[in-house]
Formats: sequence, C-alpha cells, structure tokens
Amino acid sequence: MSRIDYPVYLQLRDRLWTWIEDEQLGSQQRLPSERELSERFHTTRVTIRQALSQLEAEGLIFRSNRRGWYITPERLRYDPSRDVGFNRYVTEQGFRPRTETLSKVLTETPPWLSEITGLAIGAPIYHVFRRRYVDERGLLVEHNYINPAHCPGLLSESTDVSIWQMLRDQYDLCPEHRDIEIYPLALKGLEAEALGVNQGTAGLYIQRLSFDQRGEFLELDREYWLHDALKISVRIGDRH
Amino acid sequence: MSRIDYPVYLQLRDRLWTWIEDEQLGSQQRLPSERELSERFHTTRVTIRQALSQLEAEGLIFRSNRRGWYITPERLRYDPSRDVGFNRYVTEQGFRPRTETLSKVLTETPPWLSEITGLAIGAPIYHVFRRRYVDERGLLVEHNYINPAHCPGLLSESTDVSIWQMLRDQYDLCPEHRDIEIYPLALKGLEAEALGVNQGTAGLYIQRLSFDQRGEFLELDREYWLHDALKISVRIGDRH
Repeated sequence: MSRIDYPVYLQLRDRLWTWIEDEQLGSQQRLPSERELSERFHTTRVTIRQALSQLEAEGLIFRSNRRGWYITPERLRYDPSRDVGFNRYVTEQGFRPRTETLSKVLTETPPWLSEITGLAIGAPIYHVFRRRYVDERGLLVEHNYINPAHCPGLLSESTDVSIWQMLRDQYDLCPEHRDIEIYPLALKGLEAEALGVNQGTAGLYIQRLSFDQRGEFLELDREYWLHDALKISVRIGDRH
Repeated sequence: MSRIDYPVYLQLRDRLWTWIEDEQLGSQQRLPSERELSERFHTTRVTIRQALSQLEAEGLIFRSNRRGWYITPERLRYDPSRDVGFNRYVTEQGFRPRTETLSKVLTETPPWLSEITGLAIGAPIYHVFRRRYVDERGLLVEHNYINPAHCPGLLSESTDVSIWQMLRDQYDLCPEHRDIEIYPLALKGLEAEALGVNQGTAGLYIQRLSFDQRGEFLELDREYWLHDALKISVRIGDRH
C-alpha cells in the first residue's frame, strides 16, 4: 500500500510550526499578520488560513477577537487517577490559580440530580457557579452541587477558594469515593457566555461525583473547559 | 445573589429529553421530524433546532446526513489508569469491535517522532493507519508507529487485529511503561476524511507512548475519536 499524500495546507502547517519554533515564539505571543505570513511563505491567504486553522484545531495557536493569532499556553496537565484539587495541580505546574464566584444559591434538587446522587427530588441543595483562571486567563466554569446536610452555612463563606479544602478543614468532610467522567462537548448557553466564546465552540467536560466517608452524596462538580486548556495525562509503570 | 435565568431553548431541551426518555427511544433510533416536534411542543422550528443542537452538543443525539436526528449510542467507557486494549474494553462492555487497516508502510522517522521516541531522525519505522468500529459504526482512526527493531516482519502480518496482542504473542514484547495524553481537538485533514465527518468537527485525541521492558521505544498510538463516542471514566476509592 502506498503512503497517503498530504495536502498542501498540511505541508504548510509543518513549515509554519517549524518556523514558529525556530523563532522561539512563546506562550501568548502574537504571530505576524496573515498578510505577512503569506508573503513570507510565498503562498495565498487562503492556504495560510487553512494552515493556521489546522494549528488552531491542534490547540497550538488561538485567535483573539480581531487582534490576530497567538501562541496557546502549554496545556495544564490533569491526572484523574490522582485527582488533586484545582489550586494544587495548577500551583504544582508553576501557574497562578484564581476563582471567581458568579452565583450561589440554596435551591431544590432537580430530577436529573436526584437520579445520580440519591437525594430526594426537591431536597435542598447548594448550587455554586464559578469561573476559574490560570495566570488570569479564564479557562473553565464550574457548577458545584453540594449536599447542605453536611455543611450548613457553607454559602455564607467565600466560595472563591477551594471548596474541597473548605469541606475538609471546616466540616471535616473528605471525599472517600469519586466517580470521574470526562468527555468533549460543544460549549453552549450559560457556559459559553461565561467563558466568552461563541456558542458551539469545542470544549471539554469533567464531572466529579463525590461521596463522603459514610457513602452519602457530598458534592457534584461539572466543569466546562476551553478545548485548548487542559490535557488528561496518565503515566503507567515507571520510566527506565 | 440570584439564580441565573435559563433561556427558553434550554428549558425546551429539558422537556424534549424527558419526552425522549418517556418514549424509551433507544440507541440509533430516529427522532420525529423537526416539524412534528415543533407541533408537539407548541414552539417554533428555530427554538426546536436550538434545543436539538444543545442535545447534539451534549452528545445525546446525532444528525445523519439529511436523514434526521438519531439517539447517540451510549458512550464507550475507557479508563486510562487501567488502559487495556481496544478489543478487550469494547467486548467487556457488550459491543462488537472491528478493525480495518487503511494503509501500512515502512518509512523514516520524522523529526517530531524522533523527539518523543528517542529514535534517530530517518531511522526505519512502521506506520499503520487504521479505522476501528464498534457495532459497525466507525468511531476512530488510529496511527500506529512501531519500532521495527523489535518486531521485524510485522507488516507482513494482518494488522486488522490487536497490535498489542500481536507484539506480545509473536514477539514477546510487552509495554512496560506508558505515557497517555488525552485532549479534545477539531478533526481535520486525513482523519476527518477517514471518519466521514466535516473538516473541523469536534473530536477527542488519545496518545499512548509505550516503552518495552528494556525502556526502549516500542509503539506510539495516535487515536482520533468522534466527539460523542467515548468517555474517560475513572473510579477512585470504593463505593460503600
């Protein structure tokens, strides 16, 4: 069987990326304009755009509204088999985390939440909606649903911190068992709006369902990430 | 702080999904037409489409070219901390796996591959490109790069099987150490074409870099999945 031929724009993508690496353009630095690039690489604007769009799809560059193309910061690494808190793994990788509470409310458990948590429909539940930043770039929004039975008064505290740490330090609650699910989705509605992206932009969903030491529902996280912000990273066995 | 109001189409999305569940529409079953749905829910075609599009973004329904909307099959579960082979986890979940080789070739190690494997640039490398099916729906395409030093003659075997099993059974090679990376991307170029989706459709990328018992590069997998086909699923601790 013969090798599959690569289209011109993919060859250009390789030359463009090699050039970016040679130029040592770093995180959040700006690329030359499309016009300049098409002159430098002796090609058309259409082909340059296809090559740039390929690099965007690979998460290597991102577009900032009308201001051009930028180098995407290195993806944060997250290991679900370890699953430490956001503030910890961001800090461990040398970045600066920040959390902003967009809304918090005591509400009633809806049917879908009852189904996965075992709480009765209509039972009281805390719902906190937050945006989280890494080095001041907003990378995700998160819905936290917390069982108020175990942590009355939680909403009167600041939720611009680690909720896990708060549950542990102030309420002596520790997630003993967790089910984590991760899959790609298109960002829409509230989440797209709060992240400042177009409806339908690709994203990553992380759900974390936690039960306490007695096996009772403790907390549900539903995180919506920008598609280029995170990678799941798992190491099996030891490097020789 | 007050609760954020949900737009009409999101409310409709909930009613629509409740109705689908009540009707017990199952995997790959077809939804009524958009016209029928807008009559049933006393709303406009525009709002129905927004609600359907939301369910599509969530991976609950998918569109089949001009033939309407269908219920997405349950996502396959894949646990990277366990990382058994495709044929095994598909079979364990009650589905039927199939693999089709699209091309295979002995070629030369390009710079990017040299960098992550430690092979010399230009060193011989097997490159196999395959499409994999679950219950006859093509869910992913995969590039395998295999170090021929340890398995001469591999390409003369059928590669429509588990390459891991072949390496183990015929060459006594076993991946001892693996680095796994997973992130969302847009499917483009060759991979989009081989999956029969539009350029730029959201997808999921899984990379698996394996070294053998002696710490030498064994194999690199680069998998490109449809966005609605897989979920990463990790359980931590035991359920009480």
